[in-house]
Amino acid sequence: MNIITFFSQIDQIYLWDIIGTAVFGVSGVLIAMERRMDVFGMLILAFVTGVGGGTLRDVLIGYIPVFWMRDHIYIVMIIVSVVITLLFKNKMADQWGRWLLLFDAIGLGVFTIIGIEKALRYELSPTIAIILGTMTGSFGGVIRDILANKLPALFHKEIYATACIAGGTVYFLINSFMPHNLVIFITIVVVIAVRLLSLKYHWELPKF
Amino acid sequence: MNIITFFSQIDQIYLWDIIGTAVFGVSGVLIAMERRMDVFGMLILAFVTGVGGGTLRDVLIGYIPVFWMRDHIYIVMIIVSVVITLLFKNKMADQWGRWLLLFDAIGLGVFTIIGIEKALRYELSPTIAIILGTMTGSFGGVIRDILANKLPALFHKEIYATACIAGGTVYFLINSFMPHNLVIFITIVVVIAVRLLSLKYHWELPKF
Amino acid sequence: MNIITFFSQIDQIYLWDIIGTAVFGVSGVLIAMERRMDVFGMLILAFVTGVGGGTLRDVLIGYIPVFWMRDHIYIVMIIVSVVITLLFKNKMADQWGRWLLLFDAIGLGVFTIIGIEKALRYELSPTIAIILGTMTGSFGGVIRDILANKLPALFHKEIYATACIAGGTVYFLINSFMPHNLVIFITIVVVIAVRLLSLKYHWELPKF
Repeated sequence: MNIITFFSQIDQIYLWDIIGTAVFGVSGVLIAMERRMDVFGMLILAFVTGVGGGTLRDVLIGYIPVFWMRDHIYIVMIIVSVVITLLFKNKMADQWGRWLLLFDAIGLGVFTIIGIEKALRYELSPTIAIILGTMTGSFGGVIRDILANKLPALFHKEIYATACIAGGTVYFLINSFMPHNLVIFITIVVVIAVRLLSLKYHWELPKF
Repeated sequence: MNIITFFSQIDQIYLWDIIGTAVFGVSGVLIAMERRMDVFGMLILAFVTGVGGGTLRDVLIGYIPVFWMRDHIYIVMIIVSVVITLLFKNKMADQWGRWLLLFDAIGLGVFTIIGIEKALRYELSPTIAIILGTMTGSFGGVIRDILANKLPALFHKEIYATACIAGGTVYFLINSFMPHNLVIFITIVVVIAVRLLSLKYHWELPKF
Repeated sequence: MNIITFFSQIDQIYLWDIIGTAVFGVSGVLIAMERRMDVFGMLILAFVTGVGGGTLRDVLIGYIPVFWMRDHIYIVMIIVSVVITLLFKNKMADQWGRWLLLFDAIGLGVFTIIGIEKALRYELSPTIAIILGTMTGSFGGVIRDILANKLPALFHKEIYATACIAGGTVYFLINSFMPHNLVIFITIVVVIAVRLLSLKYHWELPKF
């Protein structure tokens, strides 16, 4: 099976879900290196960043055993993210930096959708669904920062979770009258747009 | 419906549960401000402080989806706690400080009872029930401190969990021969009393 | 019932499981003392170190209420670990240091086996079983370090989780053709050997 048949066989959301997992994983490895952790520390930080948000979501709604115990692709992607980061660690910071931010934003959008749709399958309300979408997208990074003994970046540095909340809100505004595929597409685009624009124009949430 | 009919319609425990959630939330917002977090950080810290202990309890006993996914009042109270703290942030530290401590103590007592009664509904033993009551009352603050990258205050500063343990012990001492309403009332009073007296007289647990 | 009948009545794995819990608990109390926590902080740190890894495992696979709610011996052992550490705190660091390391290594091996076997009972794959075995053995220490506001030792200092992974891998290599008792014995010996040899010869995982 070549790579094109592989890609055409699987659902697009699923594809971006696993790419997002790997890109989130890379951000875990980079923090682990910054903290001078060993290879095992890198694996764990890649793991919690890549699957931590979804794991918390699954535990809170009762989808257990959690998702990465049911499909090995997630663990494979975590290992891939560690190997690739070690092989190309100089490129990661430099040339690839912008690509990583883009893929991270796409991953964020896809994770948000997955969280929302899973919540709806459990017949939870839109508010809870948006919370779970945001959690899926952004809590991997929070657990990563806690394990690395840092103040979570999410809480004071960037528009990140806000992008998930914006996307989730749009989802429920358009969900009743648009076809489902379009709703998903627009939601992901909103998350990506808010995230990338906030990076470009240095948007910040107010502090007091 | 005016506020008095509202209050008389709902169960007293439930009323103090949601007030306790908001007061716990306020303590999360205050720590978030201290750490210069943005508005989203405040929301998260209010959220974990207000519902974190009960969430951990629910996950450990298997009451999932967890409680705040089943009743929106908790999320409403978290948002209320952020708004009120931002509006009255000067008053919070000053004039309101003593009221907050009182409400926090009442919340602590009510949270303890809720944890104990939920454990008993799952046919867990008195020991486990006291542990779960204490967890419900005090672990929101622990998660708050971890997210704020602080050594949890619970572990070295104050008689807090000890008040829950004292109340829980009294609960099981009197439960077999007193009417249930009175057991609940006395337990809550014991928690509040131990908590407030420990603040007044600077009680501390021994260190070694 | 004297101690010999007690020991001969219970299963050897179970015996070492509860001894391991107490020894892990001791390491929690020692960190709590280092951080000048009070008696309650010691109890919590002993608790999370002793049962934290297994609790996380149980929550992720859905074995809830979690194990220590079903058998009080774990809570008893936690309390025992606090009392013993307080009584013999000078000896702990000195004469007992080597014994603690040995018991800790045995506990690590036993916890790994328990995690693996529980995963298999849930029909999870060998990869997931090794992950859960490693988690059972090593995440109590991670939660301990997070609560004590330290960078988890697991991620940068020692061969610890690696011993669990080595043992778990051996388990699945020999499981198909050896009797079950022997598989368990060899797995535990491998974990202990890797752990103790790594301490003796100062093995470390590579950093980058």
